[in-house]
Amino acid sequence: MNKRIIEKYALEFEKAFNSYIPQRVCNYSILIDSMRYSFLLGGKRIRPIILMEFYRICGGKDNKALPFAVALEMIHTYSLIHDDLPCMDDDDMRRGKPSNHIEFGEDIALLAGDGLLTHAFYIASQVKDIEPKLCLKAINVLSELSGISGMIGGQVIDLLNEDKRASAETINEINLLKTGALISAAAKIGVILADGSEEMVEYAEAYGTKLGLAFQIMDDILDAVGDEKVLGKPIHSDEKNQKSTYVSLYGIEKCHEMVKNLTDEAISCLKNISVEAGFLEELTRYLANRKN
Amino acid sequence: MNKRIIEKYALEFEKAFNSYIPQRVCNYSILIDSMRYSFLLGGKRIRPIILMEFYRICGGKDNKALPFAVALEMIHTYSLIHDDLPCMDDDDMRRGKPSNHIEFGEDIALLAGDGLLTHAFYIASQVKDIEPKLCLKAINVLSELSGISGMIGGQVIDLLNEDKRASAETINEINLLKTGALISAAAKIGVILADGSEEMVEYAEAYGTKLGLAFQIMDDILDAVGDEKVLGKPIHSDEKNQKSTYVSLYGIEKCHEMVKNLTDEAISCLKNISVEAGFLEELTRYLANRKN
Repeated sequence: MNKRIIEKYALEFEKAFNSYIPQRVCNYSILIDSMRYSFLLGGKRIRPIILMEFYRICGGKDNKALPFAVALEMIHTYSLIHDDLPCMDDDDMRRGKPSNHIEFGEDIALLAGDGLLTHAFYIASQVKDIEPKLCLKAINVLSELSGISGMIGGQVIDLLNEDKRASAETINEINLLKTGALISAAAKIGVILADGSEEMVEYAEAYGTKLGLAFQIMDDILDAVGDEKVLGKPIHSDEKNQKSTYVSLYGIEKCHEMVKNLTDEAISCLKNISVEAGFLEELTRYLANRKN
Repeated sequence: MNKRIIEKYALEFEKAFNSYIPQRVCNYSILIDSMRYSFLLGGKRIRPIILMEFYRICGGKDNKALPFAVALEMIHTYSLIHDDLPCMDDDDMRRGKPSNHIEFGEDIALLAGDGLLTHAFYIASQVKDIEPKLCLKAINVLSELSGISGMIGGQVIDLLNEDKRASAETINEINLLKTGALISAAAKIGVILADGSEEMVEYAEAYGTKLGLAFQIMDDILDAVGDEKVLGKPIHSDEKNQKSTYVSLYGIEKCHEMVKNLTDEAISCLKNISVEAGFLEELTRYLANRKN
């Protein structure tokens, strides 16, 4: 796996993020600090990388899709801030650091989340060197898959099934919406901005769905048998919370098989879009074999 | 004041709202119920009316701007839901009914707010019969003025000045951002969607600023000397919270004079845009003389 490319992308996103938000707003710099804090906590930056790469393999030129990549990651970031709030998962730590509301207070954390979500659409609607029609379509996909029929819908079903032994069907639905939707958004938006065909958009959506599920099953496997040191967080949290997971439903061995099959299917979607998807193929395999 | 027109608009917005959100999502209808609950609580619907009327007086045809009007009101609604949350103003009541989080729980209220905000951009980005370039510009204005440089910024400054005797300058800034920004957005988006000139957009912005301030000063006056029965909420809340307001800074008489002057200035902006702004002029005067 070429980690250099990932690191280069990550730096590019952080630099772009900083240039897209006001550097200093004298009266309320705490809001900007809070938004920046969570965005720059890091993470794998999978979604914006997938967006940029789909744009590239569909013939997109230069870095024109960059604002959309950053907008998507801002939406992912806002969802983590709101998820950590006391009225939601009540998590004090995120990526080894205090959660946003621990660092800045609940009120500012709430507004920082709202601010990141709103600013994502501001950045996306300001793109000048891609056809307005395509930008509008991309904003439509972004708002659909991060909204009530996508990520937010998944969070609601997840909430409603807390402390319940959910069925395999429900778990699939939660993961498709909570994790799969934003990954599909990344892939689809990349294709749309490069003016790819309807067929390519469909393959992109299928890729996101397959990878999203593989990613979530891998999460469950790591929570069951991962190495806490490599993972950077305590394992067995699902068992403790009596949460139904792919592992509790199917067992470790079957889960590994599912990850393998989903990864192969995701990669075959890539091959249907372009012969230049070598890096995306590597990334997809890497995510299926990750240790954290 | 022709209240029939206002009522007709209000019904139209509610009908459109219902058609823009999924009627029934079997697994998470509580989210949709919660979004609908707050949107349909009512209110004056000033913002979407202003949007539709600016669209009309700038030569916009039919109801093409309706999705943007509803999107704007959805953003106003989300901001009220998040404002009422315990970590913010902790208000149990809104328009004489239990606040969203009292009715649905804090977690669902948070997500209903996020859902309304995200869905606003979904609806706006789906408009098909207005030029994509104009829609994109309108989305840009919507996200700017409801975001960190607009409404959210105002909320942050307001938070930071709680329990403080803020200066006249700070109070002006808070009100310009918290109240003025979304009213300016309404007026500007109406002009933009009708493909009005840059000059018209500037007059629309000025109108929103003047009316936003007049509206807020009137709020402060009503809180000081209004009739609780007509107002539908207890008065003297600002005094109790030791909050600086226009009334505590300038006194009632001067405040009435400021409202009158701002209203005249707002109306002169209207006259610069169109001779057909009779209803908007009436509405502007009505808001300056309202009793609730």
